[in-house]
Amino acid sequence: MASPIQQNLEKKNAEYSAKFSKGDLALPPAKHYLIVTCMDARIDPAAAFGIDLGDAHVIRNAGACARDALRSLVISQQLLGTREILVVKHTDCGMLTFTNDDIRATVKEKLGPAAAAELGTMDFLPFPDVEQAVRDDLDFLRKHTAAIRADTVVSGWVYDVKTGSVKSIA
Amino acid sequence: MASPIQQNLEKKNAEYSAKFSKGDLALPPAKHYLIVTCMDARIDPAAAFGIDLGDAHVIRNAGACARDALRSLVISQQLLGTREILVVKHTDCGMLTFTNDDIRATVKEKLGPAAAAELGTMDFLPFPDVEQAVRDDLDFLRKHTAAIRADTVVSGWVYDVKTGSVKSIA
Repeated sequence: MASPIQQNLEKKNAEYSAKFSKGDLALPPAKHYLIVTCMDARIDPAAAFGIDLGDAHVIRNAGACARDALRSLVISQQLLGTREILVVKHTDCGMLTFTNDDIRATVKEKLGPAAAAELGTMDFLPFPDVEQAVRDDLDFLRKHTAAIRADTVVSGWVYDVKTGSVKSIA
Repeated sequence: MASPIQQNLEKKNAEYSAKFSKGDLALPPAKHYLIVTCMDARIDPAAAFGIDLGDAHVIRNAGACARDALRSLVISQQLLGTREILVVKHTDCGMLTFTNDDIRATVKEKLGPAAAAELGTMDFLPFPDVEQAVRDDLDFLRKHTAAIRADTVVSGWVYDVKTGSVKSIA
């Protein structure tokens, strides 16, 4: 028995696929770039950042953390030819609201010792300042990893969830 | 000097923000679910999977790998109250086209020994069969991790990039 969420996906997808006309797009992103942004529910990257279907890889995780995305970044660059990276974090991010100690305590309390042991010293990558976090990610991509091509064009942005506008950071 | 890609983001975002009217959405996803899907450029999750702004977390990485998303999944569930997970992989995925040995050789050749040493034995998580990969991810979420709530509703899907339609797998 499908859940209401699953039924919604099936119903909306049936409408989408009935009108779908982009079945001939190639696997590699046509514009050779990728965006790293947050999983936040208030962000629609295609609409807000002007990405046409087929143009760019979109990586999303908690906090738009470039370090956490390294596996995907390497695959995108080395196998699928992307050459430019845009990191887009956002205002009012959940990552601003906790510390590693907080979430480790929550995991232990809510999920128990097996979960706490499994996650161990996992860095959940929270940050106290979103603009500084963007700069730190750009430093990582530009200076602190050898796994990103040296000629990659890298830029950083903050999206305002109240206004829908992006601001260039670096 | 902004690159053409950066100029495109600024121009399209100015149009988006000029019409933006959803500035009052709450941080936690209104429908308490999350989707894990691929970074592939041919997927527009909001449109294809019927996600209204504010309703769901969207995690995207190379291959829609649940294991790779564990940090984000724990944050989504423990801090932001999501209770249902949909894993949506897709046809013609780049992850079907290589092995760990392939990409490690590519990294060494294209980026050099420092990158190869930095990535070490990183598992790039390729898979030879997309439907089996969905089942493996569901097994991971349901049985092999203590870090996901036991009462989580989990389902798996494959999106067809040629037709725009999703198929339920498990």
